Amino acid sequence: MSAMVTELENSRAPLFVGIDGGGTKTKAIIYHNDVILGSAIAGPANPYHDFERAIHSVMTATTKALVDAQLPPQTIHSLIAGVGLAGVNIPELFEQVLSWGHPFKQMFLTTDLHIACIGAHQGKEGAVIITGTGSCGYSSAQGQSLVVGAHGFPHGDKGSGAWFGFSAVEQVLLAMDGLAQPTVLVQSVKSHLDCKDDLALVQRVNGQKSQFFATMAPLVFEAARQGDDVALSIVKEGAEYISGLADKLLQTKPDRLSIIGGLAPLLSPFLSPNIQDALAAPLAPPEFGAIYFAKQQLAQLQQQPILTEQEA
Amino acid sequence: MSAMVTELENSRAPLFVGIDGGGTKTKAIIYHNDVILGSAIAGPANPYHDFERAIHSVMTATTKALVDAQLPPQTIHSLIAGVGLAGVNIPELFEQVLSWGHPFKQMFLTTDLHIACIGAHQGKEGAVIITGTGSCGYSSAQGQSLVVGAHGFPHGDKGSGAWFGFSAVEQVLLAMDGLAQPTVLVQSVKSHLDCKDDLALVQRVNGQKSQFFATMAPLVFEAARQGDDVALSIVKEGAEYISGLADKLLQTKPDRLSIIGGLAPLLSPFLSPNIQDALAAPLAPPEFGAIYFAKQQLAQLQQQPILTEQEA
Repeated sequence: MSAMVTELENSRAPLFVGIDGGGTKTKAIIYHNDVILGSAIAGPANPYHDFERAIHSVMTATTKALVDAQLPPQTIHSLIAGVGLAGVNIPELFEQVLSWGHPFKQMFLTTDLHIACIGAHQGKEGAVIITGTGSCGYSSAQGQSLVVGAHGFPHGDKGSGAWFGFSAVEQVLLAMDGLAQPTVLVQSVKSHLDCKDDLALVQRVNGQKSQFFATMAPLVFEAARQGDDVALSIVKEGAEYISGLADKLLQTKPDRLSIIGGLAPLLSPFLSPNIQDALAAPLAPPEFGAIYFAKQQLAQLQQQPILTEQEA
Repeated sequence: MSAMVTELENSRAPLFVGIDGGGTKTKAIIYHNDVILGSAIAGPANPYHDFERAIHSVMTATTKALVDAQLPPQTIHSLIAGVGLAGVNIPELFEQVLSWGHPFKQMFLTTDLHIACIGAHQGKEGAVIITGTGSCGYSSAQGQSLVVGAHGFPHGDKGSGAWFGFSAVEQVLLAMDGLAQPTVLVQSVKSHLDCKDDLALVQRVNGQKSQFFATMAPLVFEAARQGDDVALSIVKEGAEYISGLADKLLQTKPDRLSIIGGLAPLLSPFLSPNIQDALAAPLAPPEFGAIYFAKQQLAQLQQQPILTEQEA
């Protein structure tokens, strides 16, 4: 047995795994005494879309992170798991994941939005705007949580990467029919999609999911930078929605507000001035938020018996 | 053998089947000497989405129509088929359907848009706006054909039933988050969807297809009629797109322009005045257009040998 394993077993500090499971990938980190011992990435973990696959991704990410930490596989039974998953805001799914028969010593489950928020504020309460492939807002303040958006693509998720790319494709299709001008944006989307003719382009975009459209979001911002009016109006419309969403979050009086996700650097300069002023840098990623969450839950559990004795 | 079968066999007039295959259903009519002998409906026939199912639907509609016409099954080998199918504007799909090994005496294949147009103008050239679950424009004039739209939902098909219902759902989701006013439209969509709470509604609309959204299109028009500004702006936006599409069609100088599809009666009053003035009533449904098409193709084929002899 390695010196590290012996040291961990003799330590009174618990060994944590922090898991951030989302629609495209799952991240896991092994954490002990303020040190990251290992990390790993696995496939998607959205139990709403595919329960079995979500569980498989959580397991794969964890076992790979243990390998990365040079810890033996059976260490999994000693882990205190903080798990944030998309979709578990639905009560039945929350219960289903809880009753999965996990291999951890203990598991604390919450939503991916919650751990993203706790991560951004290093364990404290606050609010986050998330703009990546999808978009939403989350606030945990004054003992209450609020979700704005998170309705999914294409009917929701305005101002997200998918929405920007989708709006760009709409313009290309209008221009193809002569119902809109073939601006810089239209040309850049057409060359991005690299289709030999209009019919091929129509076939290419048919039935595509959010990830496909999200790859084209940067083209909209680049065209807007070059002065393309159509691109600029799309950027303004998306930013206006996200500013409105942020205003809703600010009404909950959070201590901090951050914007996270792949689109954040591109979108932030277009948000309304009061939102830009309110933004604070995110301090840690969601998988750290999962660790903070597990620590807090564990501390609360350890306090409960004492409270009960005092009350009794 | 029945008197009718004997009569048909002795007749020199060919026996036709006209088939209109679309994304939701397939219609077939058996036609002889200007008389409809029988008709039937079968499942979807869009070979782009499901080739085997499309062929199966064409066969089912035909055999059911023969039964309805009180003709024996083997009559299928005597039929001259006019077939209009969605998706066969794609050259590979057109070839694939042509080489299917059909049981007809002869088969003439074209797009569903083409037979809809020929039907609306009783065999003559012209143009049609189609607004049902989807939307598009088609013109066959001056020896050239033009398709406007027909890009599919949700990235295309603006001004269609699906688009109106989708736009209504977007408003409901915004209102749920407090980012839009809960107008008449929002209330009517919520009661239409009949969900016990907001979460159930979000789950209900997730991943739905065009047909689901199209069922809610009438709610938008009804709310607009009641003076709901949000609904009215959706109606105006959709109608503006369809008017622009119709303008494109009018540029091809068609002899006639008609609007067809389930949404036509609701949408027509909102089209721009020049389009409303240009509209002529559709004269026959698409399955009749398929018969007209087959008759025209057959006549052309019968002329060809004579021309070839003259040339030789």
